[in-house]
Amino acid sequence: MDIMQVEDSLVCSRRVPGLANVSLRVLRSRSGSRAVAVDTIGTRPGNWVFTISGSAARLAVGSKILTDLSIGGIIDRWDEDSRAALD
Amino acid sequence: MDIMQVEDSLVCSRRVPGLANVSLRVLRSRSGSRAVAVDTIGTRPGNWVFTISGSAARLAVGSKILTDLSIGGIIDRWDEDSRAALD
Amino acid sequence: MDIMQVEDSLVCSRRVPGLANVSLRVLRSRSGSRAVAVDTIGTRPGNWVFTISGSAARLAVGSKILTDLSIGGIIDRWDEDSRAALD
Amino acid sequence: MDIMQVEDSLVCSRRVPGLANVSLRVLRSRSGSRAVAVDTIGTRPGNWVFTISGSAARLAVGSKILTDLSIGGIIDRWDEDSRAALD
Amino acid sequence: MDIMQVEDSLVCSRRVPGLANVSLRVLRSRSGSRAVAVDTIGTRPGNWVFTISGSAARLAVGSKILTDLSIGGIIDRWDEDSRAALD
Repeated sequence: MDIMQVEDSLVCSRRVPGLANVSLRVLRSRSGSRAVAVDTIGTRPGNWVFTISGSAARLAVGSKILTDLSIGGIIDRWDEDSRAALD
Repeated sequence: MDIMQVEDSLVCSRRVPGLANVSLRVLRSRSGSRAVAVDTIGTRPGNWVFTISGSAARLAVGSKILTDLSIGGIIDRWDEDSRAALD
Repeated sequence: MDIMQVEDSLVCSRRVPGLANVSLRVLRSRSGSRAVAVDTIGTRPGNWVFTISGSAARLAVGSKILTDLSIGGIIDRWDEDSRAALD
Repeated sequence: MDIMQVEDSLVCSRRVPGLANVSLRVLRSRSGSRAVAVDTIGTRPGNWVFTISGSAARLAVGSKILTDLSIGGIIDRWDEDSRAALD
Repeated sequence: MDIMQVEDSLVCSRRVPGLANVSLRVLRSRSGSRAVAVDTIGTRPGNWVFTISGSAARLAVGSKILTDLSIGGIIDRWDEDSRAALD
Protein backbone atom coordinates (compact mmCIF):
# COMPACT_ATOMS: atom_id res chain seq x y z
CA MET A 1 0.00 0.00 0.00
CA ASP A 2 1.31 3.44 -0.87
CA ILE A 3 1.15 6.86 0.72
CA MET A 4 -0.24 9.66 -1.43
CA GLN A 5 -1.90 13.03 -1.12
CA VAL A 6 -5.35 13.89 -2.50
CA GLU A 7 -5.10 16.62 -5.14
CA ASP A 8 -8.66 16.95 -6.40
CA SER A 9 -11.60 15.13 -7.98
CA LEU A 10 -11.51 13.69 -11.46
CA VAL A 11 -14.35 14.73 -13.71
CA CYS A 12 -14.98 12.05 -16.23
CA SER A 13 -18.39 11.88 -17.93
CA ARG A 14 -17.69 8.94 -20.18
CA ARG A 15 -16.63 5.80 -18.36
CA VAL A 16 -16.82 2.03 -18.58
CA PRO A 17 -19.94 0.64 -16.85
CA GLY A 18 -17.94 -0.86 -13.98
CA LEU A 19 -16.91 2.60 -12.76
CA ALA A 20 -20.17 4.49 -13.18
CA ASN A 21 -21.31 6.48 -10.13
CA VAL A 22 -18.14 6.23 -8.07
CA SER A 23 -16.05 9.10 -6.78
CA LEU A 24 -12.64 9.31 -8.40
CA ARG A 25 -9.74 11.27 -6.90
CA VAL A 26 -6.48 12.41 -8.43
CA LEU A 27 -3.65 11.53 -6.04
CA ARG A 28 -0.08 12.74 -6.06
CA SER A 29 2.88 10.86 -4.64
CA ARG A 30 5.83 12.47 -2.97
CA SER A 31 7.85 12.00 -6.15
CA GLY A 32 5.23 13.91 -8.14
CA SER A 33 3.62 11.04 -10.05
CA ARG A 34 -0.17 11.05 -10.26
CA ALA A 35 -2.72 8.24 -10.00
CA VAL A 36 -6.50 7.93 -9.95
CA ALA A 37 -8.25 6.08 -7.12
CA VAL A 38 -11.79 5.23 -6.05
CA ASP A 39 -12.80 7.04 -2.86
CA THR A 40 -15.51 5.50 -0.69
CA ILE A 41 -14.62 7.23 2.58
CA GLY A 42 -14.93 10.88 1.62
CA THR A 43 -11.48 12.44 1.40
CA ARG A 44 -10.69 16.11 0.77
CA PRO A 45 -7.91 17.77 -1.21
CA GLY A 46 -4.77 17.88 0.92
CA ASN A 47 -5.52 14.69 2.89
CA TRP A 48 -2.69 12.18 3.11
CA VAL A 49 -4.07 8.70 2.44
CA PHE A 50 -2.83 5.19 1.87
CA THR A 51 -3.95 3.32 -1.21
CA ILE A 52 -4.74 -0.33 -1.93
CA SER A 53 -3.88 -1.71 -5.36
CA GLY A 54 -4.60 -4.85 -7.36
CA SER A 55 -7.47 -7.21 -6.71
CA ALA A 56 -7.64 -6.06 -3.07
CA ALA A 57 -8.58 -2.57 -4.34
CA ARG A 58 -11.67 -4.03 -5.90
CA LEU A 59 -12.66 -6.13 -2.92
CA ALA A 60 -12.10 -3.23 -0.52
CA VAL A 61 -14.76 -1.06 -2.16
CA GLY A 62 -17.19 -3.76 -3.30
CA SER A 63 -16.19 -6.21 -5.99
CA LYS A 64 -18.49 -4.78 -8.63
CA ILE A 65 -16.44 -1.58 -8.79
CA LEU A 66 -13.77 -2.34 -11.35
CA THR A 67 -10.85 -0.37 -9.99
CA ASP A 68 -7.18 -1.23 -9.53
CA LEU A 69 -6.61 1.48 -6.89
CA SER A 70 -8.74 2.43 -3.89
CA ILE A 71 -8.22 4.77 -0.97
CA GLY A 72 -7.83 2.56 2.11
CA GLY A 73 -7.73 5.18 4.85
CA ILE A 74 -6.92 8.73 5.84
CA ILE A 75 -3.66 9.04 7.77
CA ASP A 76 -4.16 10.94 11.04
CA ARG A 77 -0.87 12.80 10.85
CA TRP A 78 1.70 12.73 8.12
CA ASP A 79 4.59 15.09 8.02
CA GLU A 80 6.16 14.52 4.64
CA ASP A 81 8.85 17.08 5.28
CA SER A 82 10.11 15.59 8.51
CA ARG A 83 10.11 12.12 6.90
CA ALA A 84 12.10 13.43 3.99
CA ALA A 85 14.58 14.97 6.39
CA LEU A 86 15.36 11.48 7.72
CA ASP A 87 16.41 10.19 4.32
CA MET B 1 -5.39 3.84 -12.27
CA ASP B 2 -3.12 6.00 -14.38
CA ILE B 3 -3.54 9.07 -16.54
CA MET B 4 -2.35 8.79 -20.13
CA GLN B 5 -2.92 10.35 -23.52
CA VAL B 6 -4.10 8.45 -26.59
CA GLU B 7 -1.46 8.55 -29.32
CA ASP B 8 -2.93 6.35 -32.05
CA SER B 9 -4.25 2.88 -32.88
CA LEU B 10 -2.11 -0.22 -32.86
CA VAL B 11 -2.24 -2.30 -35.99
CA CYS B 12 -1.55 -5.86 -35.15
CA SER B 13 -2.73 -8.59 -37.55
CA ARG B 14 -1.37 -11.55 -35.63
CA ARG B 15 -2.64 -11.86 -32.08
CA VAL B 16 -3.47 -14.42 -29.45
CA PRO B 17 -7.13 -15.56 -29.67
CA GLY B 18 -8.09 -13.73 -26.46
CA LEU B 19 -7.45 -10.35 -28.07
CA ALA B 20 -8.93 -10.90 -31.52
CA ASN B 21 -11.35 -8.21 -32.69
CA VAL B 22 -10.71 -5.63 -30.01
CA SER B 23 -9.52 -2.07 -30.55
CA LEU B 24 -6.02 -1.47 -29.24
CA ARG B 25 -4.64 2.01 -28.56
CA VAL B 26 -1.08 3.19 -28.01
CA LEU B 27 -1.03 5.45 -24.96
CA ARG B 28 1.69 7.78 -23.80
CA SER B 29 2.28 8.86 -20.23
CA ARG B 30 3.50 12.25 -19.19
CA SER B 31 6.98 10.83 -18.68
CA GLY B 32 7.03 9.55 -22.26
CA SER B 33 6.61 5.82 -21.65
CA ARG B 34 4.17 4.00 -23.90
CA ALA B 35 1.60 1.27 -23.21
CA VAL B 36 -1.07 -0.58 -25.15
CA ALA B 37 -4.67 -0.68 -23.88
CA VAL B 38 -8.02 -2.10 -24.95
CA ASP B 39 -10.50 0.62 -25.88
CA THR B 40 -14.22 -0.14 -25.61
CA ILE B 41 -15.48 3.43 -25.34
CA GLY B 42 -14.19 4.95 -28.57
CA THR B 43 -11.32 7.31 -27.81
CA ARG B 44 -9.50 9.53 -30.31
CA PRO B 45 -5.86 10.54 -30.56
CA GLY B 46 -5.16 13.38 -28.17
CA ASN B 47 -7.78 12.34 -25.58
CA TRP B 48 -6.59 12.20 -21.99
CA VAL B 49 -7.87 8.99 -20.39
CA PHE B 50 -7.45 7.00 -17.22
CA THR B 51 -6.48 3.34 -17.43
CA ILE B 52 -7.38 0.27 -15.38
CA SER B 53 -4.72 -2.41 -14.94
CA GLY B 54 -4.55 -5.97 -13.64
CA SER B 55 -7.51 -8.30 -13.33
CA ALA B 56 -9.89 -5.30 -13.13
CA ALA B 57 -8.84 -4.38 -16.70
CA ARG B 58 -10.20 -7.67 -17.89
CA LEU B 59 -13.42 -7.50 -15.93
CA ALA B 60 -14.03 -3.91 -17.04
CA VAL B 61 -14.22 -4.80 -20.72
CA GLY B 62 -15.69 -8.31 -20.46
CA SER B 63 -13.72 -11.11 -18.90
CA LYS B 64 -13.12 -12.96 -22.15
CA ILE B 65 -10.87 -10.16 -23.39
CA LEU B 66 -7.45 -11.09 -22.09
CA THR B 67 -5.95 -7.69 -21.46
CA ASP B 68 -3.96 -6.29 -18.53
CA LEU B 69 -4.78 -2.65 -19.40
CA SER B 70 -8.09 -1.07 -20.40
CA ILE B 71 -9.23 2.48 -20.92
CA GLY B 72 -11.62 3.28 -18.06
CA GLY B 73 -12.85 6.71 -19.11
CA ILE B 74 -12.17 9.93 -20.97
CA ILE B 75 -11.22 12.82 -18.72
CA ASP B 76 -13.38 15.88 -19.39
CA ARG B 77 -10.59 18.38 -18.93
CA TRP B 78 -6.96 17.72 -18.27
CA ASP B 79 -4.37 20.41 -18.40
CA GLU B 80 -1.09 18.58 -18.13
CA ASP B 81 0.89 21.78 -18.29
CA SER B 82 -0.84 23.52 -15.42
CA ARG B 83 -0.53 20.34 -13.33
CA ALA B 84 3.15 20.15 -14.07
CA ALA B 85 3.54 23.77 -13.05
CA LEU B 86 2.32 22.82 -9.55
CA ASP B 87 5.09 20.31 -9.05
CA MET C 1 9.07 -10.34 -2.32
CA ASP C 2 11.01 -7.27 -1.29
CA ILE C 3 13.35 -6.39 1.53
CA MET C 4 12.40 -3.36 3.62
CA GLN C 5 12.98 -1.90 7.06
CA VAL C 6 10.22 -1.12 9.56
CA GLU C 7 10.09 2.60 10.29
CA ASP C 8 7.08 2.94 12.58
CA SER C 9 3.35 2.33 12.95
CA LEU C 10 0.74 4.07 10.85
CA VAL C 11 -2.04 5.74 12.78
CA CYS C 12 -5.14 5.82 10.68
CA SER C 13 -8.51 6.22 12.41
CA ARG C 14 -10.67 6.25 9.30
CA ARG C 15 -10.29 3.17 7.11
CA VAL C 16 -12.25 0.97 4.75
CA PRO C 17 -13.99 -1.91 6.57
CA GLY C 18 -11.61 -4.54 5.12
CA LEU C 19 -8.67 -3.07 7.03
CA ALA C 20 -10.30 -2.34 10.39
CA ASN C 21 -8.41 -3.64 13.42
CA VAL C 22 -5.18 -4.62 11.71
CA SER C 23 -1.70 -3.34 12.52
CA LEU C 24 -0.23 -1.21 9.77
CA ARG C 25 3.49 -0.46 9.50
CA VAL C 26 5.35 2.15 7.48
CA LEU C 27 8.26 0.46 5.73
CA ARG C 28 11.22 2.04 4.02
CA SER C 29 13.22 0.50 1.21
CA ARG C 30 16.91 0.92 0.73
CA SER C 31 16.25 3.49 -1.99
CA GLY C 32 14.17 5.58 0.43
CA SER C 33 10.68 4.87 -0.91
CA ARG C 34 7.99 4.14 1.65
CA ALA C 35 5.13 1.63 1.70
CA VAL C 36 2.43 0.53 4.13
CA ALA C 37 2.06 -3.16 5.07
CA VAL C 38 -0.12 -5.30 7.30
CA ASP C 39 1.85 -6.81 10.19
CA THR C 40 0.57 -10.02 11.77
CA ILE C 41 3.84 -11.20 13.31
CA GLY C 42 4.72 -8.29 15.58
CA THR C 43 7.65 -6.38 14.11
CA ARG C 44 9.46 -3.44 15.72
CA PRO C 45 10.97 -0.28 14.24
CA GLY C 46 14.39 -1.10 12.81
CA ASN C 47 13.58 -4.73 11.90
CA TRP C 48 14.51 -5.79 8.39
CA VAL C 49 11.62 -7.75 6.89
CA PHE C 50 10.56 -9.21 3.58
CA THR C 51 7.18 -8.30 2.17
CA ILE C 52 4.58 -10.20 0.14
CA SER C 53 2.57 -8.27 -2.45
CA GLY C 54 -0.50 -8.87 -4.61
CA SER C 55 -3.14 -11.50 -3.93
CA ALA C 56 -0.62 -13.56 -1.91
CA ALA C 57 -0.43 -10.67 0.60
CA ARG C 58 -4.10 -11.12 1.29
CA LEU C 59 -3.99 -14.89 1.57
CA ALA C 60 -0.91 -14.75 3.83
CA VAL C 61 -2.70 -12.80 6.55
CA GLY C 62 -6.23 -14.18 6.13
CA SER C 63 -8.20 -13.46 3.00
CA LYS C 64 -10.65 -11.12 4.68
CA ILE C 65 -7.92 -8.54 5.25
CA LEU C 66 -7.93 -6.46 2.10
CA THR C 67 -4.27 -5.59 1.80
CA ASP C 68 -1.89 -5.61 -1.17
CA LEU C 69 1.26 -5.79 1.02
CA SER C 70 1.96 -7.94 4.07
CA ILE C 71 5.04 -8.58 6.15
CA GLY C 72 6.11 -12.17 5.42
CA GLY C 73 8.92 -12.59 7.93
CA ILE C 74 11.66 -10.95 9.96
CA ILE C 75 15.13 -11.46 8.52
CA ASP C 76 17.53 -12.86 11.14
CA ARG C 77 20.50 -10.81 9.98
CA TRP C 78 20.65 -8.20 7.29
CA ASP C 79 23.61 -5.99 6.78
CA GLU C 80 22.47 -3.45 4.24
CA ASP C 81 25.82 -1.73 4.22
CA SER C 82 27.89 -4.79 3.40
CA ARG C 83 25.39 -5.72 0.67
CA ALA C 84 25.64 -2.27 -0.81
CA ALA C 85 29.42 -2.56 -0.77
CA LEU C 86 29.14 -5.55 -3.12
CA ASP C 87 27.33 -3.56 -5.76
CA MET D 1 0.34 -4.11 -22.18
CA ASP D 2 3.86 -3.11 -23.14
CA ILE D 3 5.77 -2.79 -26.37
CA MET D 4 9.02 -4.75 -26.61
CA GLN D 5 11.35 -6.24 -29.19
CA VAL D 6 12.23 -9.93 -29.43
CA GLU D 7 15.94 -10.45 -28.84
CA ASP D 8 16.33 -14.24 -28.92
CA SER D 9 15.19 -17.51 -27.35
CA LEU D 10 15.92 -18.46 -23.78
CA VAL D 11 17.53 -21.84 -23.30
CA CYS D 12 16.58 -23.20 -19.95
CA SER D 13 16.82 -26.96 -19.35
CA ARG D 14 15.74 -26.96 -15.74
CA ARG D 15 12.33 -25.42 -15.12
CA VAL D 16 9.33 -25.68 -12.84
CA PRO D 17 6.72 -28.15 -14.17
CA GLY D 18 4.27 -25.38 -15.08
CA LEU D 19 6.61 -24.04 -17.76
CA ALA D 20 7.86 -27.28 -19.32
CA ASN D 21 7.65 -27.45 -23.11
CA VAL D 22 6.83 -23.82 -23.80
CA SER D 23 8.85 -21.41 -25.94
CA LEU D 24 10.46 -18.64 -23.95
CA ARG D 25 11.74 -15.42 -25.54
CA VAL D 26 14.05 -12.75 -24.20
CA LEU D 27 12.49 -9.36 -24.89
CA ARG D 28 14.09 -5.96 -24.70
CA SER D 29 12.27 -2.71 -24.01
CA ARG D 30 13.15 0.61 -25.51
CA SER D 31 14.85 1.60 -22.26
CA GLY D 32 17.08 -1.48 -22.43
CA SER D 33 15.49 -3.59 -19.68
CA ARG D 34 14.98 -7.27 -20.45
CA ALA D 35 12.11 -9.64 -19.68
CA VAL D 36 11.20 -13.25 -20.46
CA ALA D 37 7.85 -14.09 -22.07
CA VAL D 38 5.97 -17.15 -23.27
CA ASP D 39 5.57 -17.18 -27.05
CA THR D 40 2.66 -19.13 -28.54
CA ILE D 41 2.45 -17.31 -31.88
CA GLY D 42 5.94 -17.88 -33.29
CA THR D 43 7.90 -14.64 -33.16
CA ARG D 44 11.38 -14.06 -34.55
CA PRO D 45 14.29 -11.97 -33.29
CA GLY D 46 13.75 -8.35 -34.26
CA ASN D 47 9.92 -8.49 -34.16
CA TRP D 48 8.21 -5.74 -32.21
CA VAL D 49 5.49 -7.26 -30.04
CA PHE D 50 3.10 -6.26 -27.30
CA THR D 51 3.07 -8.24 -24.08
CA ILE D 52 0.32 -9.21 -21.64
CA SER D 53 1.21 -9.41 -17.94
CA GLY D 54 -0.40 -10.70 -14.76
CA SER D 55 -3.19 -13.26 -14.65
CA ALA D 56 -4.25 -12.33 -18.20
CA ALA D 57 -0.85 -13.60 -19.41
CA ARG D 58 -1.71 -17.02 -18.11
CA LEU D 59 -5.22 -17.08 -19.50
CA ALA D 60 -4.04 -15.84 -22.89
CA VAL D 61 -1.81 -18.86 -23.50
CA GLY D 62 -3.81 -21.53 -21.65
CA SER D 63 -4.22 -21.38 -17.91
CA LYS D 64 -1.97 -24.35 -17.22
CA ILE D 65 1.07 -22.41 -18.39
CA LEU D 66 2.29 -20.63 -15.29
CA THR D 67 3.66 -17.44 -16.76
CA ASP D 68 3.32 -13.79 -15.73
CA LEU D 69 4.21 -12.45 -19.22
CA SER D 70 3.00 -13.62 -22.64
CA ILE D 71 3.42 -12.26 -26.13
CA GLY D 72 0.00 -10.96 -27.20
CA GLY D 73 0.67 -10.08 -30.82
CA ILE D 74 3.19 -8.99 -33.44
CA ILE D 75 2.93 -5.31 -34.33
CA ASP D 76 2.63 -4.83 -38.08
CA ARG D 77 4.81 -1.72 -38.20
CA TRP D 78 6.66 -0.09 -35.40
CA ASP D 79 9.14 2.65 -35.94
CA GLU D 80 10.76 3.17 -32.61
CA ASP D 81 12.97 5.92 -33.89
CA SER D 82 10.18 8.09 -35.27
CA ARG D 83 8.21 7.59 -32.05
CA ALA D 84 11.19 8.63 -30.01
CA ALA D 85 11.56 11.71 -32.18
CA LEU D 86 8.09 12.83 -31.05
CA ASP D 87 9.06 12.84 -27.40
CA MET E 1 9.28 -12.89 -16.06
CA ASP E 2 12.58 -11.32 -15.07
CA ILE E 3 16.20 -12.35 -15.22
CA MET E 4 18.12 -12.28 -11.96
CA GLN E 5 21.17 -13.83 -10.31
CA VAL E 6 21.08 -15.87 -7.11
CA GLU E 7 23.07 -14.16 -4.38
CA ASP E 8 22.50 -16.38 -1.33
CA SER E 9 19.89 -17.89 0.96
CA LEU E 10 17.68 -15.83 3.23
CA VAL E 11 17.66 -16.89 6.86
CA CYS E 12 14.37 -15.98 8.40
CA SER E 13 13.24 -17.82 11.53
CA ARG E 14 10.00 -15.96 12.05
CA ARG E 15 7.60 -16.12 9.13
CA VAL E 16 3.92 -16.16 8.31
CA PRO E 17 2.48 -19.71 8.24
CA GLY E 18 2.10 -19.70 4.44
CA LEU E 19 5.87 -19.56 3.94
CA ALA E 20 7.02 -22.00 6.60
CA ASN E 21 9.48 -24.65 5.41
CA VAL E 22 10.26 -23.22 1.99
CA SER E 23 13.67 -22.23 0.67
CA LEU E 24 14.03 -18.50 0.15
CA ARG E 25 16.76 -16.98 -2.02
CA VAL E 26 18.02 -13.42 -2.26
CA LEU E 27 18.23 -12.47 -5.94
CA ARG E 28 19.98 -9.52 -7.51
CA SER E 29 19.02 -7.88 -10.78
CA ARG E 30 21.44 -6.41 -13.23
CA SER E 31 20.57 -2.93 -11.97
CA GLY E 32 21.47 -3.94 -8.42
CA SER E 33 18.01 -4.19 -6.89
CA ARG E 34 17.33 -7.19 -4.66
CA ALA E 35 14.29 -9.43 -4.29
CA VAL E 36 13.37 -12.58 -2.36
CA ALA E 37 12.01 -15.65 -4.18
CA VAL E 38 10.85 -19.16 -3.33
CA ASP E 39 13.19 -21.80 -4.77
CA THR E 40 11.79 -25.26 -5.45
CA ILE E 41 14.39 -26.38 -8.00
CA GLY E 42 17.60 -26.09 -6.02
CA THR E 43 19.60 -23.13 -7.26
CA ARG E 44 23.07 -22.12 -6.12
CA PRO E 45 24.66 -18.71 -5.60
CA GLY E 46 25.81 -17.34 -8.94
CA ASN E 47 23.12 -19.08 -11.02
CA TRP E 48 21.23 -16.88 -13.45
CA VAL E 49 17.52 -17.63 -13.20
CA PHE E 50 14.22 -16.29 -14.46
CA THR E 51 11.51 -15.46 -11.98
CA ILE E 52 7.71 -15.70 -12.05
CA SER E 53 5.70 -13.03 -10.22
CA GLY E 54 2.10 -12.50 -9.18
CA SER E 55 -0.48 -15.25 -8.83
CA ALA E 56 1.48 -17.45 -11.26
CA ALA E 57 4.35 -17.51 -8.73
CA ARG E 58 2.06 -19.15 -6.25
CA LEU E 59 0.61 -21.66 -8.68
CA ALA E 60 4.07 -22.56 -10.01
CA VAL E 61 5.30 -23.82 -6.65
CA GLY E 62 2.04 -25.17 -5.20
CA SER E 63 -0.79 -22.83 -4.36
CA LYS E 64 -0.44 -23.22 -0.62
CA ILE E 65 2.91 -21.42 -0.67
CA LEU E 66 1.99 -17.76 -0.32
CA THR E 67 4.70 -16.14 -2.40
CA ASP E 68 4.60 -13.38 -5.02
CA LEU E 69 7.93 -14.41 -6.61
CA SER E 70 9.21 -17.88 -7.52
CA ILE E 71 12.23 -19.11 -9.41
CA GLY E 72 10.93 -20.53 -12.70
CA GLY E 73 14.12 -22.02 -14.13
CA ILE E 74 17.90 -21.91 -14.31
CA ILE E 75 19.20 -20.33 -17.52
CA ASP E 76 21.72 -22.59 -19.25
CA ARG E 77 24.01 -19.78 -20.35
CA TRP E 78 23.71 -16.12 -19.62
CA ASP E 79 26.42 -13.68 -20.42
CA GLU E 80 25.32 -10.47 -18.78
CA ASP E 81 28.37 -8.60 -20.00
CA SER E 82 27.93 -9.40 -23.67
CA ARG E 83 24.22 -8.50 -23.41
CA ALA E 84 25.08 -5.21 -21.81
CA ALA E 85 27.54 -4.53 -24.59
CA LEU E 86 24.66 -4.66 -27.08
CA ASP E 87 22.79 -1.88 -25.35
